[in-house]
Amino acid sequence: MMRLHYLPGTAAMAPHATLVEVGVSYELVRVERDADRRVAEEYLALNPWGKIPTLEDGDVVLTESAAICLYLAEKFPDACLAPPAGTLERAELYRWLFWLSNTVQMTLMRHFYPERYGTAGVEEAADADLAEHFDLTDRHLAGREWIVGEERTVVDLFLFMLTRWGRFLEPAAWERPNLRRHWLRALELPGVRKMIEEQGLELPAFARSTDA
Amino acid sequence: MMRLHYLPGTAAMAPHATLVEVGVSYELVRVERDADRRVAEEYLALNPWGKIPTLEDGDVVLTESAAICLYLAEKFPDACLAPPAGTLERAELYRWLFWLSNTVQMTLMRHFYPERYGTAGVEEAADADLAEHFDLTDRHLAGREWIVGEERTVVDLFLFMLTRWGRFLEPAAWERPNLRRHWLRALELPGVRKMIEEQGLELPAFARSTDA
Repeated sequence: MMRLHYLPGTAAMAPHATLVEVGVSYELVRVERDADRRVAEEYLALNPWGKIPTLEDGDVVLTESAAICLYLAEKFPDACLAPPAGTLERAELYRWLFWLSNTVQMTLMRHFYPERYGTAGVEEAADADLAEHFDLTDRHLAGREWIVGEERTVVDLFLFMLTRWGRFLEPAAWERPNLRRHWLRALELPGVRKMIEEQGLELPAFARSTDA
Repeated sequence: MMRLHYLPGTAAMAPHATLVEVGVSYELVRVERDADRRVAEEYLALNPWGKIPTLEDGDVVLTESAAICLYLAEKFPDACLAPPAGTLERAELYRWLFWLSNTVQMTLMRHFYPERYGTAGVEEAADADLAEHFDLTDRHLAGREWIVGEERTVVDLFLFMLTRWGRFLEPAAWERPNLRRHWLRALELPGVRKMIEEQGLELPAFARSTDA
């Protein structure tokens, strides 16, 4: 059985939702950390990079949230979570997934952990960058349901995670109209719903009200 | 014909080397920038993100250096620049390519452009992180020729680019023994050699001496 090492609300969110979407059975393993937020030696033996999440699939031990999403999309092609390799849409998926990972996600890290990046001014610079990133994504989503093509892909699961992280910004990422519609749409996916439930994550008021 | 919009020594390096490795004919288009390093409106019309590089392949307009590398690897499978989709090695390729893009490359940006990330301390934090990243990569390369599997892949072309960018660190990235061997090995690839020549990039003394 696949095992996903996770902590609630971390970069394990997108791989977790992907596991559900592809329909495979899996086990969640909560990563233990000490008072200084250091992960246990046992986890470091599995993943020397020490980052969360890690996926175990038999002998495969895989890290990097976006890489795990792609790996699962390829292993379970019937779930149609990525356009076929070699197509234009697949190239577009790569473009968005790398940008979300290396630009938006990394800028969010500067927002959350400015002390890792020096000191003064880092959070302000990150916030300004993030406003641009989310504006750009919001414009792309005008008149579209999903980031690439006509169906949901792993990019949408990844974006759902980042938009949630952007709830602490002023304004929150999901205050943008197209991005909010995308977020609510993604929230209807079985993978996202189950991930939210299994990780015990809270929903914003505007999302709870749509449950009724 | 494929057109690669580039500037010498930028993130266009890896896609440029990939174009040569896959054996397709291509045209290099140098991006124009004004005195404030702003790209021309013409380029922004093509790529609203404004980042370098951009690949044009007929109707395809693709950005993100790593995404372009993957796109080319898939379009020209005979070049064997990526293991087949769905394999364990393909998953490893994704893992390394995302990590190099979202962690190593982004940390190099903090080193080169600390003013974008706030002010004091950012470069020092970046340098400490980069020492770890290159150490980790150097350890992985002990007893190996390439990052993934037995043959060179787009990850190696990407790493070649980052190792070169790391020449300004103290010590330079390529002062690590395995990383230097990898860099020199990559330098022997036709794609890398032609890219270096066409972009007019200088080689370090230790690399020039191996020409003899």
